[in-house]
Amino acid sequence: MDRRDMLELLNEVATGVTSPEDALAELHADTVSDLGYARIDNARGLRQGVSEVVYGAGKTADQIAGICHAMLGAGQRRILITRLDAEKRSLLPADLDLAYHEDAQLGIVGGIPEPDGNGTIVVACGGTSDLPVAEEAALTAEFLGNTVVRLYDVGVAGIHRLLAHADEIMHAHVVVAVAGMEGALPSVIGGLTAAPVIAVPTSIGYGANFGGVAALLAMLNSCASGVSVVNIDNGFGAGYQANAINHL
Amino acid sequence: MDRRDMLELLNEVATGVTSPEDALAELHADTVSDLGYARIDNARGLRQGVSEVVYGAGKTADQIAGICHAMLGAGQRRILITRLDAEKRSLLPADLDLAYHEDAQLGIVGGIPEPDGNGTIVVACGGTSDLPVAEEAALTAEFLGNTVVRLYDVGVAGIHRLLAHADEIMHAHVVVAVAGMEGALPSVIGGLTAAPVIAVPTSIGYGANFGGVAALLAMLNSCASGVSVVNIDNGFGAGYQANAINHL
Amino acid sequence: MDRRDMLELLNEVATGVTSPEDALAELHADTVSDLGYARIDNARGLRQGVSEVVYGAGKTADQIAGICHAMLGAGQRRILITRLDAEKRSLLPADLDLAYHEDAQLGIVGGIPEPDGNGTIVVACGGTSDLPVAEEAALTAEFLGNTVVRLYDVGVAGIHRLLAHADEIMHAHVVVAVAGMEGALPSVIGGLTAAPVIAVPTSIGYGANFGGVAALLAMLNSCASGVSVVNIDNGFGAGYQANAINHL
Amino acid sequence: MDRRDMLELLNEVATGVTSPEDALAELHADTVSDLGYARIDNARGLRQGVSEVVYGAGKTADQIAGICHAMLGAGQRRILITRLDAEKRSLLPADLDLAYHEDAQLGIVGGIPEPDGNGTIVVACGGTSDLPVAEEAALTAEFLGNTVVRLYDVGVAGIHRLLAHADEIMHAHVVVAVAGMEGALPSVIGGLTAAPVIAVPTSIGYGANFGGVAALLAMLNSCASGVSVVNIDNGFGAGYQANAINHL
Amino acid sequence: MDRRDMLELLNEVATGVTSPEDALAELHADTVSDLGYARIDNARGLRQGVSEVVYGAGKTADQIAGICHAMLGAGQRRILITRLDAEKRSLLPADLDLAYHEDAQLGIVGGIPEPDGNGTIVVACGGTSDLPVAEEAALTAEFLGNTVVRLYDVGVAGIHRLLAHADEIMHAHVVVAVAGMEGALPSVIGGLTAAPVIAVPTSIGYGANFGGVAALLAMLNSCASGVSVVNIDNGFGAGYQANAINHL
Amino acid sequence: MDRRDMLELLNEVATGVTSPEDALAELHADTVSDLGYARIDNARGLRQGVSEVVYGAGKTADQIAGICHAMLGAGQRRILITRLDAEKRSLLPADLDLAYHEDAQLGIVGGIPEPDGNGTIVVACGGTSDLPVAEEAALTAEFLGNTVVRLYDVGVAGIHRLLAHADEIMHAHVVVAVAGMEGALPSVIGGLTAAPVIAVPTSIGYGANFGGVAALLAMLNSCASGVSVVNIDNGFGAGYQANAINHL
Amino acid sequence: MDRRDMLELLNEVATGVTSPEDALAELHADTVSDLGYARIDNARGLRQGVSEVVYGAGKTADQIAGICHAMLGAGQRRILITRLDAEKRSLLPADLDLAYHEDAQLGIVGGIPEPDGNGTIVVACGGTSDLPVAEEAALTAEFLGNTVVRLYDVGVAGIHRLLAHADEIMHAHVVVAVAGMEGALPSVIGGLTAAPVIAVPTSIGYGANFGGVAALLAMLNSCASGVSVVNIDNGFGAGYQANAINHL
Amino acid sequence: MDRRDMLELLNEVATGVTSPEDALAELHADTVSDLGYARIDNARGLRQGVSEVVYGAGKTADQIAGICHAMLGAGQRRILITRLDAEKRSLLPADLDLAYHEDAQLGIVGGIPEPDGNGTIVVACGGTSDLPVAEEAALTAEFLGNTVVRLYDVGVAGIHRLLAHADEIMHAHVVVAVAGMEGALPSVIGGLTAAPVIAVPTSIGYGANFGGVAALLAMLNSCASGVSVVNIDNGFGAGYQANAINHL
Repeated sequence: MDRRDMLELLNEVATGVTSPEDALAELHADTVSDLGYARIDNARGLRQGVSEVVYGAGKTADQIAGICHAMLGAGQRRILITRLDAEKRSLLPADLDLAYHEDAQLGIVGGIPEPDGNGTIVVACGGTSDLPVAEEAALTAEFLGNTVVRLYDVGVAGIHRLLAHADEIMHAHVVVAVAGMEGALPSVIGGLTAAPVIAVPTSIGYGANFGGVAALLAMLNSCASGVSVVNIDNGFGAGYQANAINHL
Repeated sequence: MDRRDMLELLNEVATGVTSPEDALAELHADTVSDLGYARIDNARGLRQGVSEVVYGAGKTADQIAGICHAMLGAGQRRILITRLDAEKRSLLPADLDLAYHEDAQLGIVGGIPEPDGNGTIVVACGGTSDLPVAEEAALTAEFLGNTVVRLYDVGVAGIHRLLAHADEIMHAHVVVAVAGMEGALPSVIGGLTAAPVIAVPTSIGYGANFGGVAALLAMLNSCASGVSVVNIDNGFGAGYQANAINHL
Repeated sequence: MDRRDMLELLNEVATGVTSPEDALAELHADTVSDLGYARIDNARGLRQGVSEVVYGAGKTADQIAGICHAMLGAGQRRILITRLDAEKRSLLPADLDLAYHEDAQLGIVGGIPEPDGNGTIVVACGGTSDLPVAEEAALTAEFLGNTVVRLYDVGVAGIHRLLAHADEIMHAHVVVAVAGMEGALPSVIGGLTAAPVIAVPTSIGYGANFGGVAALLAMLNSCASGVSVVNIDNGFGAGYQANAINHL
Repeated sequence: MDRRDMLELLNEVATGVTSPEDALAELHADTVSDLGYARIDNARGLRQGVSEVVYGAGKTADQIAGICHAMLGAGQRRILITRLDAEKRSLLPADLDLAYHEDAQLGIVGGIPEPDGNGTIVVACGGTSDLPVAEEAALTAEFLGNTVVRLYDVGVAGIHRLLAHADEIMHAHVVVAVAGMEGALPSVIGGLTAAPVIAVPTSIGYGANFGGVAALLAMLNSCASGVSVVNIDNGFGAGYQANAINHL
Repeated sequence: MDRRDMLELLNEVATGVTSPEDALAELHADTVSDLGYARIDNARGLRQGVSEVVYGAGKTADQIAGICHAMLGAGQRRILITRLDAEKRSLLPADLDLAYHEDAQLGIVGGIPEPDGNGTIVVACGGTSDLPVAEEAALTAEFLGNTVVRLYDVGVAGIHRLLAHADEIMHAHVVVAVAGMEGALPSVIGGLTAAPVIAVPTSIGYGANFGGVAALLAMLNSCASGVSVVNIDNGFGAGYQANAINHL
Repeated sequence: MDRRDMLELLNEVATGVTSPEDALAELHADTVSDLGYARIDNARGLRQGVSEVVYGAGKTADQIAGICHAMLGAGQRRILITRLDAEKRSLLPADLDLAYHEDAQLGIVGGIPEPDGNGTIVVACGGTSDLPVAEEAALTAEFLGNTVVRLYDVGVAGIHRLLAHADEIMHAHVVVAVAGMEGALPSVIGGLTAAPVIAVPTSIGYGANFGGVAALLAMLNSCASGVSVVNIDNGFGAGYQANAINHL
Repeated sequence: MDRRDMLELLNEVATGVTSPEDALAELHADTVSDLGYARIDNARGLRQGVSEVVYGAGKTADQIAGICHAMLGAGQRRILITRLDAEKRSLLPADLDLAYHEDAQLGIVGGIPEPDGNGTIVVACGGTSDLPVAEEAALTAEFLGNTVVRLYDVGVAGIHRLLAHADEIMHAHVVVAVAGMEGALPSVIGGLTAAPVIAVPTSIGYGANFGGVAALLAMLNSCASGVSVVNIDNGFGAGYQANAINHL
Repeated sequence: MDRRDMLELLNEVATGVTSPEDALAELHADTVSDLGYARIDNARGLRQGVSEVVYGAGKTADQIAGICHAMLGAGQRRILITRLDAEKRSLLPADLDLAYHEDAQLGIVGGIPEPDGNGTIVVACGGTSDLPVAEEAALTAEFLGNTVVRLYDVGVAGIHRLLAHADEIMHAHVVVAVAGMEGALPSVIGGLTAAPVIAVPTSIGYGANFGGVAALLAMLNSCASGVSVVNIDNGFGAGYQANAINHL
């Protein structure tokens, strides 16, 4: 149960639709569902405004399904599953009613809600090859209730492609800048806007890119000041923090 | 001239105290002061809400003084100089009227303004040795107009010291979490709050800490979701990003 | 022949059930079985209390079977085979009577004995994905005669899940703390107990986790004092040392 | 107040020498002394059996003195200060009554107690140059109440020097093995004893030793099973862990 | 004797001012001056068009002086000494008649000649702190006979400062792009011009810049195609390569 | 539309074959074809003399086909596709009329033009295993209109094989030197010629070659002065810059 | 044609069996067979005493066959092919008459000659998993005419297994010491013998062994003096140098 | 007492000059002089033919003097002290009668003996800056009884300087090849000779040479076959290994 669901529940209590006792039972506050292989933190929505997200890598399809059922049983309405590859997705039970985004390797149960953030989130990426990570960020932000503007293939070697969208960048509430190779995009964007920039290095490239390390280091050393960085290929993390900033 | 100064100026125009022509002259929009060794970006305040900050390392005292005088001449009222060591500070001309914070290696011209951010910024650090970086973050945030709550020496090996301040953390608008050694502080804090957490690894430690790399990697791999990271020992960058978020 | 077997044998000598001559023959002291591709150290049990363990990776199924048969022939009653993948296990001869634990990639010949250690060993891990390494540690410790308490999915981003088990941690004789990503678990546990903590970094994660290096460095730099570290994914090594400590 | 002091205090209560009320006041349980730059965890002795140790690097002499006075004021009788260089030591106030060990860079307030551990701790090192780290380990263990046997300059390139002491190694309760360069000492020792071996890589060497990384990696990859590792040059951590094991 | 000197000499032969025999003696073709500690390659000018340059680091002042005197004795008219720090320069004999550029740590004997390259070389750098490396490149190129246009402090975080000089960049024959921190400058410049871009990473920055590695990797992974890279801080190498291209 | 096409078009305008209006329409200046997953920079030929090249890795066959069709639609006559593996190539539509070079993983649409560069480009490589990268460089240079001389398997361990071709090297306008393992080829070649040398490290080798890092570092540290370096295995980048130099 | 063949040929000339003219023709001195993809250095036997060896990795089966046929055509009697995997070997033409050693991934044409070295070469390895690399070294040495003594599975964690063979080690002319994991074997052997020790790190291990880097660094930092090192898994290089030493 | 001394002693016994009993006393076989901070391995000469060498770094002048006196007392006639800086040397007692070589940082007690090796050892180095390491190798070899030919400043960028000495290289018994920067010298030399080549990387260079790592990797990946490598700057190790080979 996340921020949005709780607000709705409290409104029902306020209007008498739901009794305080029933509401309390639904809140599942402070409970942990212990599945043996996982302890689901049902109260995370209370603490952090966002329910636990399922990290699909390193879990079997059975474990993922078990966790999802436990979450739904505890009253959660929407579930995000990250790093879910197509093969594992095909092994999930049909009753989960999962929308699958193969490029971003994301599964979404319960659909994407109406956006209710303070502004728009721009997700920009340097090249076509960075698209999967950018989509992971964009879909995560949308899942959490944000309006997202996508600016793809605006790498710095053709700077006019980026400058053509300076307006959208300047009016964004948060910018997620995704880039592989030399990872220069966040620095240029950081110089164009007062909004915080979340930089996401991708593993796109070869040779001395070292699986994204080149872009990661570039972003950590950005000469633009309002830039912070998440892990290589961590589109989810960027979308998540952009949401946190956009819902303050 | 930063966001605050410009707002004041526009109010003066609105009330007739200053004519539009005089205001335009003061805005210095789109001008660059070319000192040969530096091109001062006088319009940065217009674009980003914060005027250019002087990075003291790798510049001579003469260059720093020259840049400051040019900025003041272009109408900037407050200047922040980072990475200013005590020896270089002693070589700056007295007329700069600089307040010097030795622990944080910061010089401030023009004083710290009244805070006008949306909420409070918590700056937490793991150990006494991380204090200089934490102070760099805290003073930067205060210089940019934010209320800062300091929580120092709350490392995770004595978790009760941190949990005793769970309340301040939960009510913060942004948290800057500074830690060396294993860099675990942002992960624990990230699990306690819905606010974005800016993590700052420090170079404190020895051996396999590799000048802060251990903490940097830990923070990039944080299992808590709302955490992004700045460069090692980059307290300034964290304070700057926290300000951007706190002024949206 | 390990510590336990030798004690039993010496009791038989003391009670006249076995003659000293027969016992000597069974001890195989100072003998090495040379199989060409391997020299089995039959006297290791005498020196170290634990017989040689078979490292399955990099050996063919035939080599593993040959080594096991030689060990059984030399009087060893229980054999532990580590890093044994399912395919290689399927190629082992049926007469070995092997119990196979696929998650931990362990094969056990001769079963798990009654525990006879001084206290309990807690094996804790941060997330569901760390479970295989944690199981390798837990099963190794059980194979060597220890009582093991498993605390899985107690990562630091939901610190209350760990604190709920503070009691078991405080009463443990040794704690094995297994974690990937930022590897912060041993630091927090190390602050809660006087018992030695053996930290095991796992390769779980992506990007800048560098196959477990992030967690390894974090653990080596732990700000908690009673923490020592084994190799990445080395659940066996942690279980082995925990046993050594628990049998002092 | 550590394990030893508390036991004494409880005996005084049991015999009526001290009233329960006075004892409670002395225990300082759950209190934290907040000095601004440091929060002293006075209850650490209750939780971990060992009081907080002062890490001298990165603290000023004034901060160290302040922390020591606060600890003494809170009833602690003995204080260990690590990484205390000779210059900083000379700036500490005389009333601290500090015994200083320059080779190990340790300061000890209140003297070394009678040993009360279960067995002996062997501290072995490979070469003369590793001596400072070995001494840090040995003195830490003695400070915490252990009997220490020193075996110095027993590197593996002259294996007979080590084998001449096989007896002491086999009868140790714990072995701390300190080595720089190729860091092979713990592997050879680990093959000679059933006791747990705590390996300490040192930064001694040049070129491709990379400040101790060569020895660190060797120790993490030890082919002997009962070996765990602490940070480079972390003699303190090894002595601390050896004490924990020796007092179970 | 370099390209220029040889051309002059050959003209003298053609016009009878110098006899072929005397010219041959002056050419010193295929001779090596063996000073014991150095073998001066007098024929390098014949093979490569540029005489040997003296790398000052790791040589004593006496060795540098000896090499210079041997070169002058062998007919060389101009000598470039790189990595010559101020202290070593002060120890050189006065008769060398050296012009010293402290910022670039360059000594020049015999002055800078008239430029005779095919076009202009633009030397651009990101920040004031990169100036010493940029000057090393610019002065090297001038020493070798090129017209140099300096564009300093045009980092990508204020992209308009760079775009204001797009014209000079587009009309350059070669561009040397010098940058520290995230090293993005060559990528942006590479997208603006058809000329080859020689990228020079500098060690300017801190933390995860790792002494210039961040910028180096960024430049090797540039998404702009016409970019090649020299060693960190190797302004000399860039100036030399730019000269080779500008004199084809 | 690249340099060559544009020149032809302008000639047509000059001779009245094409009207200025039609020419303008064909130039597609300043237009960007936005395909959603890619923004094609149609004006790159105007700015850089070379049209955009398609980087095949990380793109689907459908995306590659879409981009090619858009480029052809915008008037481009020849397209180079790099990093195109055989499987992806087999999925491209037949109407693209692609010539495929499997060793170099290059696809070429529209054929290779007559060379029109200033001199020859020598592409040399150390061993047979470096051939794919050398071919990528050679074919790229030929695609862009250059005469290429191939010198393969001339590694430095049999220096006479290289010296036998000293003549071709000395008369080259540019040399591309491709080598794996210890990467010494560019240093030896750099000492033989006045022409600029573009060094390409390859990932050929094993163990401590670290995927080409050994060769990369060797090349960056070349003691020969006129050497600059591109990314590991980046034959394309070297061919591209060699073309830029050869067309100045 | 290698040292041995040439000696035989010269003897035939001395005894009139072969005329000087025919012998000259057979020597192929200074000739290079240019196959396009390879330049075979037929005179290497004259210069180095050992004919060129074929490195199988990165070459196609067709290229390998072509090179072998050219070598045989140029009079070479025995050919060694390294890094030849089983699949590629199956694609080689039958007429090559190749003996294949799968464990060592070696193919040998023309058989192994009688040994004619000055002494014996000991090849020792730490564990069963290092056997393939040790066999590559041993077979290379035998192919080049040396007597080899194999000591396998004598790792330092069971030091008595090694000491039991101290005699063979002390009487060796050269020792090749092969080890993965912590790579300590060469240090211990180096302390037992006056003969030169060639150390070969293997990639055996996991986690922080980093594909053999741990063993490599340990060997480079060996505290024993007469140890030099070849590349990770480079059994061939060690066998080759051992042969050079054994034939001085 | 080394090989040479022992031979002399045995000759005295054979001729009755010394009695067997006196000889035995002088041999000090199997004794270890325990100085507390060092255990001198007096029998090393018996085992390895070379007495223990004193590694000066990390030892105080007092410790060095103590060790030397103990060695002299145990009958050793010549002592080599490595890594002895000028300051520490000035603190050694005058009675040691030490010859000091500042460039190589070597101290020699007892002088250099007549050479008695099988052939000559060539020590070659790339540049003047590598001279200290080359001298450490050359002097070590001379101290151990070898004839040394020095070839300095023969780097591969002026390959003719090296080829001019091909003769000396081809006739050497062993070659020590010392180089910094790209470390290509051993590869070129290895292709010119049948003798074993010991490669020594030096830390000379800057930027991406990473303190000698670039040269080290190049040497480990040498495409010439008879090359093995010692640690960065380890001239002593190379001289020692060359001696072992030259005295077989």
